[in-house]
Amino acid sequence: MSDMDLISGLAGKSASKMILLVLDGLGGLPHPDTGLTELETARTPNLDALARESICGMIHAIGPGITPGSGPAHMALFGYDPVRFEVGRGVLSALGVGIELGPDDLAARVNFCTVEKGVITDRRAGRISTETNQRLCEKLSSISMEGARVLIRPEKEHRAALVFTAPGLSDRVSDTDPQKTGLAPLRCEPLPDGGEAAERTAELVNAYLDRATEVLADEHPANMIVTRGFAKLPHIPKMTDLYGLRAGAIATYPMYRAVAKLVGMEVLETGPSFSDQMDALNRSWEGYDYFFIHYKYTDSRGEDGDFEAKVSCIEEVDSQLPRLLELDPEVLAITGDHSTPALLKGHSWHPSPLLLRSRWERRDGVEAFGETACARGGLGVFTAVQLLPLMLANAGRLEKFGA
Amino acid sequence: MSDMDLISGLAGKSASKMILLVLDGLGGLPHPDTGLTELETARTPNLDALARESICGMIHAIGPGITPGSGPAHMALFGYDPVRFEVGRGVLSALGVGIELGPDDLAARVNFCTVEKGVITDRRAGRISTETNQRLCEKLSSISMEGARVLIRPEKEHRAALVFTAPGLSDRVSDTDPQKTGLAPLRCEPLPDGGEAAERTAELVNAYLDRATEVLADEHPANMIVTRGFAKLPHIPKMTDLYGLRAGAIATYPMYRAVAKLVGMEVLETGPSFSDQMDALNRSWEGYDYFFIHYKYTDSRGEDGDFEAKVSCIEEVDSQLPRLLELDPEVLAITGDHSTPALLKGHSWHPSPLLLRSRWERRDGVEAFGETACARGGLGVFTAVQLLPLMLANAGRLEKFGA
Repeated sequence: MSDMDLISGLAGKSASKMILLVLDGLGGLPHPDTGLTELETARTPNLDALARESICGMIHAIGPGITPGSGPAHMALFGYDPVRFEVGRGVLSALGVGIELGPDDLAARVNFCTVEKGVITDRRAGRISTETNQRLCEKLSSISMEGARVLIRPEKEHRAALVFTAPGLSDRVSDTDPQKTGLAPLRCEPLPDGGEAAERTAELVNAYLDRATEVLADEHPANMIVTRGFAKLPHIPKMTDLYGLRAGAIATYPMYRAVAKLVGMEVLETGPSFSDQMDALNRSWEGYDYFFIHYKYTDSRGEDGDFEAKVSCIEEVDSQLPRLLELDPEVLAITGDHSTPALLKGHSWHPSPLLLRSRWERRDGVEAFGETACARGGLGVFTAVQLLPLMLANAGRLEKFGA
Repeated sequence: MSDMDLISGLAGKSASKMILLVLDGLGGLPHPDTGLTELETARTPNLDALARESICGMIHAIGPGITPGSGPAHMALFGYDPVRFEVGRGVLSALGVGIELGPDDLAARVNFCTVEKGVITDRRAGRISTETNQRLCEKLSSISMEGARVLIRPEKEHRAALVFTAPGLSDRVSDTDPQKTGLAPLRCEPLPDGGEAAERTAELVNAYLDRATEVLADEHPANMIVTRGFAKLPHIPKMTDLYGLRAGAIATYPMYRAVAKLVGMEVLETGPSFSDQMDALNRSWEGYDYFFIHYKYTDSRGEDGDFEAKVSCIEEVDSQLPRLLELDPEVLAITGDHSTPALLKGHSWHPSPLLLRSRWERRDGVEAFGETACARGGLGVFTAVQLLPLMLANAGRLEKFGA
């Protein structure tokens, strides 16, 4: 019996409302001049006041030293073992643009790129506009393959989702994106353990990519596509079924909406800003027991390496928090899915600060919301997959285990 | 290999003595007026002095958010994975009243109840006296069933243990206790996965309950019994065998004596008060390597929701501690099996404060024994199943792993 089965078996009903607010890539590293992280630098009167009336801690998305992608990090926050329930990049892309996947579907992430004299000179085709992307996807939709349906749909800028539909396709095939410039796009190859199904799948993918190259030949700069993250829809029990929850997701980016949908949440309408998200929360308050609110830009500015801009993003969220607190959720958790220190310009393995406010938690003397303070919090350092049981317990939704 | 196999494989001998003192339901929640928990409110000079010369921490019985019953919580403290070694309520009841269980035995917990016009009006039959219970159990002992032996034995007040003995009985049958008044007692049903053995078992149980109803018809208020927690004895390796220990248990309540016996401890004679338990400890000191001392009333008063009474219980234990300390055990652990905050009037998921005193542990600057202080202790927050290895190591009983 897995921990998830155990928790699911104990789940009961309650009228209490839970909010999980994820500031993507929240955790950081100290600025060399001040010794303070982005979160510790930000002026966050609301988060600090919350920390004082919360129990705090640090969470590893997966475990010490492991830098997670956003998919597994969110799966963990939703209570799923992120290794057992790994969701492929292709699936996340396809779900993110609203493609419903079935058992015969094989999905991949596509990048438009620039190829000159046979080698890739720009892996993002100069970050073409989303409009150009849309036009090119329409053009590519003219391609038809024998024995398989193909669907390509634009994401933002140079990214698109590609789905092949046919019986017996395998996800055990390699990427064609060489991940650096100066190299030719790769051929799709069956992986050693993929068997005959992978061989047929690789043939189909290569035939499609050859046709795509012809169709895009006259375009510039986006005259080619590369693919990665071939994946099929995994079997994932819905958290709504597991725990008897009505769960709503308020996320602006396709991938996070996709993961939320995958675990059974309803994806709510929202505008792009955090203020819009607070509007959405207020509108939907009565309809759900559990809200997942995802704020993207802390991660984006961390990835840019822009320490000050990340600080500003945190301050923006803080300034809007009173609108959330007015709703007085019985259980409120605020954390990151992983750290994205501006100093590293990318995701990192560092645990994320967490605050959990509930009438039924102890206090721990933490005076401010920050990495150093939370590392001394009453919850200690634990793993993200354990957060949901803790939220459910505080909401009065878990029965006793054993007599 | 499980962790238990690993630890067992490393176990060696030593003359050091270990004491595990469990204050049942020790952990609490802050009183709204003072911000202090029951333990933090209590005047505990001895526990506080101990904390200063100990290393402290917090332990989850099972994991974050999971509220345990007393059975699994104690199994964890004794070093057993509480999910893998789940012990059913019926087995705990039967062992608790001194019934030795074998492979053909199926045990259940019985409540005497009051039924009027077909529905239960009191699930505890007005908490009949233990003497009445004894008389009714004798009366019920007149019932004989074809193909099975039946044994019913009184616990305290309205509770009794019921054991059916026959080859091929199944524990996959449902409770007949509807868990609320105003409903008729349920019929015992085979669970979906129970197969033919469960069907036969349910028939036997229902036939017995029909006979019991006849036998009790003229009684008042206890004119019926309901059953729950049908269970067979699980296979549990003895901790005495696993670690080469002579272990003694000093517990006043049947259930804790039962769990101790189940893992191979000898149950020692003791009177009902903590002072009596200290007498028992002193009498038995030379005979054992490991003592489990169980103090019940912190949990009872927590369940009552009586904050002040729970504080007094903690103070009573503290006042008697010098008698334990005079024996100068090499390893002393004091903790709870789970929290029972007076504010919640029941078991809760909150981790239990722990102090571990040993000549071979580091110090951590914790100045008092309380939840807030222990959360900053040197052992951090961990799970109860990891306590026994730590105690064994401090007793010099664990060899090095690997070369």
